[in-house]
Amino acid sequence: MDEETLTQHISQQFSIELKELRSKILYMGGLVEQQLKDALVALTTNNEQLAHKVYSNDYQINEMEVDIDEECRRVLVKRQPAATDLRLVMAVAKTITDLERMGDQAERIARMAVIIHGEAQAKYFIAVNHLGEHVQQMLHNALDAFARIDVKAAWQVIREDQKVDNEYDSLSRQLITYMMEDARIIPIALNILWSARALERIADHSCNICEYIIYLVKGQDIRHIRHASREGVEKLD
Amino acid sequence: MDEETLTQHISQQFSIELKELRSKILYMGGLVEQQLKDALVALTTNNEQLAHKVYSNDYQINEMEVDIDEECRRVLVKRQPAATDLRLVMAVAKTITDLERMGDQAERIARMAVIIHGEAQAKYFIAVNHLGEHVQQMLHNALDAFARIDVKAAWQVIREDQKVDNEYDSLSRQLITYMMEDARIIPIALNILWSARALERIADHSCNICEYIIYLVKGQDIRHIRHASREGVEKLD
Repeated sequence: MDEETLTQHISQQFSIELKELRSKILYMGGLVEQQLKDALVALTTNNEQLAHKVYSNDYQINEMEVDIDEECRRVLVKRQPAATDLRLVMAVAKTITDLERMGDQAERIARMAVIIHGEAQAKYFIAVNHLGEHVQQMLHNALDAFARIDVKAAWQVIREDQKVDNEYDSLSRQLITYMMEDARIIPIALNILWSARALERIADHSCNICEYIIYLVKGQDIRHIRHASREGVEKLD
Repeated sequence: MDEETLTQHISQQFSIELKELRSKILYMGGLVEQQLKDALVALTTNNEQLAHKVYSNDYQINEMEVDIDEECRRVLVKRQPAATDLRLVMAVAKTITDLERMGDQAERIARMAVIIHGEAQAKYFIAVNHLGEHVQQMLHNALDAFARIDVKAAWQVIREDQKVDNEYDSLSRQLITYMMEDARIIPIALNILWSARALERIADHSCNICEYIIYLVKGQDIRHIRHASREGVEKLD
């Protein structure tokens, strides 16, 4: 094997490793999506068994985080990547933290399902269901943007976040009205509010992932450019 | 300069860079501590001006995050560290994310101070004050453990977290009782509850930092070992 073939071979091997890192992230993302879906069904249909399934499956997400984290370090030591490859590895290392925390939030929703235990009236869940669907879609689109390293799709997810925040605010005002009308429902209503907040945080984490994607492609740190100026950055794209 | 002297020179230079990374983290940590302190004073003494100071200072923490993040990548490319040095750089890269999010939580508390705007009775703040002091101490000890790379101190912070969780639960039960007694205070009481929740999350982030320290020294990922087995790991130390 001459030097050039060797270099090419190493580079191919490296590119396979980076591909594997990406597909592991997508697998982990799929687990989080399933946990979120199950937690929401458990909450809104009073399915305690499903809530317990969410508890018992959370370890898989945690294991994936540790596994991918190690893989990132292994790649850094072995390949000593620079530029875009390094940014990809760093983006992966950060994405898994967000995915793991989304898993925790899904578990939190499942816990609320067990605490509420069928005591809430169906009307409380209408807005939660709507918010839940929206957030699930955001997470799905974020993972999709990651899979295709699609900056345009990433920006679309980030733009959705304001809508989710508005939905959360309106839901929260509605629950406060119910509480003020009937103080006995306060504990239940608060648990529903905690679930809604968990959803809102999952939307935030989805945005974080999209910001890593943009950073990866553009090499530009947009994390702290506020919404108004974000539009400006986007126009520069 | 012979090869050995050169290697030594590089290694000294590298060690200075790692030291700088660590002291930047501590500087950023100090900013977060100040923001948290100001936000708490703003909340519990109805000091709107101070709350606005917290808003306007948050950008400093964000800038530090971007700055240290870039520094980490620069060190990775230039030094291609392995083993403990690599773990240090990765621990720094993760710690800044937690610090930045603590800054966001401090800002959230300041926002609550402005919304509540002196409408809450002093009695609501007694428990918040107590929780706030506890969390400030935890953050301080976490930064201290980072400064000295002190695994024992890191474990102590992690152990404190259960106490903070219990304090938060008791405060939350107390606020629910107030709300059930007088429905008119629900909006105010909820804002206090959000502030308490922000404090509880800052305690969680402090624990995350301590877990990175333990990982850095022991090369052992304790993030997903549950409390019971954590004690086991600790005994092995």
